[in-house]
Amino acid sequence: MSKSIDGTPLTDEFRMPGEFEPHKQTWMLWPQRPDNWRLGAKPAQRSWVEVATAISQFEPVVVGVDHDQFDNARHRLPQHIRVVELSSNDAWMRDCGPSFVVNDEGELRLVDWDFNGWGGLHDGLEFPWDRDDAVPRKVAEIESVDRYKAPLVMEGGSFHVDGEGTLLTTEECLLSPGRNPDLSKGEIEQHLKDYLNVEKVIWLARGIDPEETNGHIDDVACFVRPGVLAFAWSDDRDHPYYDIQAENLAILLRQTDARGRALEVSKVPLPAPVVRTAEEADDVDHVEGTIPRQAGDALPASYINFYICNGGVVKPSFDDPMDEPARDAIQRLFPDRRVACVAGREILLGGGNVHCITQHQPRRSYR
Amino acid sequence: MSKSIDGTPLTDEFRMPGEFEPHKQTWMLWPQRPDNWRLGAKPAQRSWVEVATAISQFEPVVVGVDHDQFDNARHRLPQHIRVVELSSNDAWMRDCGPSFVVNDEGELRLVDWDFNGWGGLHDGLEFPWDRDDAVPRKVAEIESVDRYKAPLVMEGGSFHVDGEGTLLTTEECLLSPGRNPDLSKGEIEQHLKDYLNVEKVIWLARGIDPEETNGHIDDVACFVRPGVLAFAWSDDRDHPYYDIQAENLAILLRQTDARGRALEVSKVPLPAPVVRTAEEADDVDHVEGTIPRQAGDALPASYINFYICNGGVVKPSFDDPMDEPARDAIQRLFPDRRVACVAGREILLGGGNVHCITQHQPRRSYR
Repeated sequence: MSKSIDGTPLTDEFRMPGEFEPHKQTWMLWPQRPDNWRLGAKPAQRSWVEVATAISQFEPVVVGVDHDQFDNARHRLPQHIRVVELSSNDAWMRDCGPSFVVNDEGELRLVDWDFNGWGGLHDGLEFPWDRDDAVPRKVAEIESVDRYKAPLVMEGGSFHVDGEGTLLTTEECLLSPGRNPDLSKGEIEQHLKDYLNVEKVIWLARGIDPEETNGHIDDVACFVRPGVLAFAWSDDRDHPYYDIQAENLAILLRQTDARGRALEVSKVPLPAPVVRTAEEADDVDHVEGTIPRQAGDALPASYINFYICNGGVVKPSFDDPMDEPARDAIQRLFPDRRVACVAGREILLGGGNVHCITQHQPRRSYR
Repeated sequence: MSKSIDGTPLTDEFRMPGEFEPHKQTWMLWPQRPDNWRLGAKPAQRSWVEVATAISQFEPVVVGVDHDQFDNARHRLPQHIRVVELSSNDAWMRDCGPSFVVNDEGELRLVDWDFNGWGGLHDGLEFPWDRDDAVPRKVAEIESVDRYKAPLVMEGGSFHVDGEGTLLTTEECLLSPGRNPDLSKGEIEQHLKDYLNVEKVIWLARGIDPEETNGHIDDVACFVRPGVLAFAWSDDRDHPYYDIQAENLAILLRQTDARGRALEVSKVPLPAPVVRTAEEADDVDHVEGTIPRQAGDALPASYINFYICNGGVVKPSFDDPMDEPARDAIQRLFPDRRVACVAGREILLGGGNVHCITQHQPRRSYR
């Protein structure tokens, strides 16, 4: 059973842990739509298998899948990975999935945000988005976890928390006209404080994919641990993300977190710009209501879109000279975890990367 | 995770417990198809809610539902009943669901039979039946239970076990040409012994619904406990089921069970014959591939189609003078359980009753 709970995590003293805190398991959704994934999604499915398998070295993985693809997903995924029927409009568990919260008595609940396909009828990427929006309430039932319904359009990839009262996000996304146009910045911030039990919201300016997620934070910066951030960076002033990240860096360096700490910002190199090829574009179905996929599209490649799991970090590679330096930089940031690299291009073609297709379920904790 | 297991419950020393042994929970599937359930399935959904609610007094209930009906089912069912996405072709969890088996070390597995819509292309009731057939492997994943794939077309409503080595079934169903036409009676019996770890199969002759399930046992007789059967009976020689049950009774009275016990057969009265009204027939969609629903159809009404759960029995009523005598007879058979009565007509219109729409998941046991 899963109860729908009045009140908020703030009033009930639940908090969202940092991704680097211990997990029970990782949730993913199986890709299948031929209007976002080339060649009937078979290459993407191979990438999902690679990511799920990599994570499963470190912690249990559950993959949600439509009935039509159930047997195929079950066949392609290793048997130790759990496959459950959980239909969706696409496969971005980070964004449509729940945000789990815990208290100090070992209780787990989840926050179910409104989801509108990354911008609804204004500039969303898919139509309809009903199945994606239903994912958190279905996860609540599968896991028998009680659920808060938050009256806010949000995606899990649009924010990070440090588990100690600080939230990091971008104005470009959270203040975008396709999400919560009737709420002021202050009202949005209050909802974040109510539903994630944070005390301080740090607003960066922009992300690197204005056309897709309207600038999700999870391509540009993330918490390694409280007080320490990994941050996407290129020293090349001609890199298309240079100005964006220079502006974000300036903001970060004059901020403190909820505990009053100055933030330590560790740069992780960016790969060279990546664009969609004509062949990759031609292998995708054209369907009204889905964002078109065209040759020459800029793809938001960033190593920062890694996923932290128990004892590991799973990071995308792009056949780029920076693959190894980025791996080394991330490994230095996580001396107690092993960094596993997976091929990132296929996931990137659909609009995101490893972090975007995963959602961590924290372990219950007792303090 | 759920592993697919080679071997059989027989070789691995797993057995299927009797329905009267302790349960962890009850599984159901939500009805929705307008070609089997009148008026868009709304009256049936109310009956399902009544049955699920009645069972939930005694033990946890999980209801599987298609995405399209997820929110509706969640809204109509009490919050303490768990609702999971689990699509199906119709709503007969007894027949398409898994048969759970246990060992003495507290392990639980399940048997996944072939399912072909109660007779496949020969005389089946629905087409296609792919989602029904997938239900056991999805349940295995939801529950993280290992799974045996049995190479036999079977429905859960076509047999009962006493948990002590005896299985009760009908020749009419198991030897029907739409199920396993290439297997001899002896080969079918061997599969039952292999996959349910029984030693003796008692074959009754016929059931009471030749047009629907080809004579499922669960309308005519069931185990109350090892050695004791509840048995549908009418003293009226003109009752349409009199001859069928007289023949079955004669068979039972000359049988012993796997432990060598003579069987104690307790008669439970049958209701008067029930037929479908013209209005009830007209409120159902006509769709090729689904058994037609016509005015005057004989409906297989039997109180024996009750469900035994922890501390309770849930039994259908039919607005019949025998409702109360049947209730009293069943109550006498289960002195330690409370008999709860639910309205049975709406479920009967679709072809079965309380037992047909439930599937018990035994509690793990240690001996």
